[in-house]
Amino acid sequence: MEKAIVTLSGGLDSATLLFWSAKRFEVSAVTFDYGSKHNEKEQTAAKELARLAGAGHILIRLPFINDLFQSDLLRSGGKVPDGHYEDSSMRSTVVPFRNGIMLSIAIGLAESFEAKTVLYAAHAGDHAIYPDCRPGFLKAISEAGREGTYLGVQIVDPFIDMHKKDIVLLGNELRVPFGLTYSCYKGGDLHCGTCGTCVERKEAFRLAGIRDPTQYEA
Amino acid sequence: MEKAIVTLSGGLDSATLLFWSAKRFEVSAVTFDYGSKHNEKEQTAAKELARLAGAGHILIRLPFINDLFQSDLLRSGGKVPDGHYEDSSMRSTVVPFRNGIMLSIAIGLAESFEAKTVLYAAHAGDHAIYPDCRPGFLKAISEAGREGTYLGVQIVDPFIDMHKKDIVLLGNELRVPFGLTYSCYKGGDLHCGTCGTCVERKEAFRLAGIRDPTQYEA
Repeated sequence: MEKAIVTLSGGLDSATLLFWSAKRFEVSAVTFDYGSKHNEKEQTAAKELARLAGAGHILIRLPFINDLFQSDLLRSGGKVPDGHYEDSSMRSTVVPFRNGIMLSIAIGLAESFEAKTVLYAAHAGDHAIYPDCRPGFLKAISEAGREGTYLGVQIVDPFIDMHKKDIVLLGNELRVPFGLTYSCYKGGDLHCGTCGTCVERKEAFRLAGIRDPTQYEA
Repeated sequence: MEKAIVTLSGGLDSATLLFWSAKRFEVSAVTFDYGSKHNEKEQTAAKELARLAGAGHILIRLPFINDLFQSDLLRSGGKVPDGHYEDSSMRSTVVPFRNGIMLSIAIGLAESFEAKTVLYAAHAGDHAIYPDCRPGFLKAISEAGREGTYLGVQIVDPFIDMHKKDIVLLGNELRVPFGLTYSCYKGGDLHCGTCGTCVERKEAFRLAGIRDPTQYEA
């Protein structure tokens, strides 16, 4: 089987991507600790998900992001706002060029591991807030990977035209253990139920008509 | 003055870029420790060069590169080969997608610091060996920065069409303290004089007709 690197946060999109990819590639999953409030919970989820999917798992720490970058998603930043994901207040949770940094590292790992493919779970709902989820960004960073490596490493984003609801439907088919995934920006023991990702998560299960196994505080 | 981030290794190309940029921007220089054999010497040089150029200086450590990536440039890799920079043996010193990773981090820093420009000292002589010095790579990663940030951060590479000889001539004009710069891949107290970068460095001074202040072992 061909090798691939999967970027795995531990949330439901990347968990679904992991299980999708494990059917097609010999997968090494990579998780980044960049100092967000929810990184610790994400890591625990990511490690367990990789084990269940039969994939290798690599954790990469990027402490300089929390030290130097500006974002309310970080431990060094302010409070995470409540409300819908598309609200402008959620802009304070953007970590500058985070996805560019993570994908670049994944490309370097891929070249080192002799994998031609980096898999990434960007989806149609991400575009509104995050400049580094836009199709234009993804096209450019993928081109940089192709040009900047001997192997011509490519970023593949199979969910780019899907909505989160469709990812829940696909994950359900693939028997992804959704109850193990973690995505709340506040990083508490339970999902808060009110931050942007929690609101989006709830909505996706509701629209998909799939039972949401998540225990929310609110 | 507008702000800019300058990627500064401590070698003569990036030192010249630093002094060139300091006349045009309020500069924060960023140096990366990714576990190469010569990173320690480079850092000392970079710190002192930034001080002399009146620029801020940030050191970012990326220990995962030495731990996980394959390259003879790294402390975890094999011996650095001798010979000319363009020889195929030098390929073993390529660190997979290193420049993609460094530039992505610089783009994120720029967005955090409200700087629209990242300056990078790639030059015409780099293209032969390093896929992540090719103009196609640079165009793509710059496009990724523009698309993937709110500010539309751009990578500017003023030396891209210059040969190292021309950089020495420009640095001489700008009174860059070449004697403080460090580039030897072997990381010894003196430049070895026989590795790819040392051979290239010597040649550049000779072709420029400028006295080379470097003390070489060989």
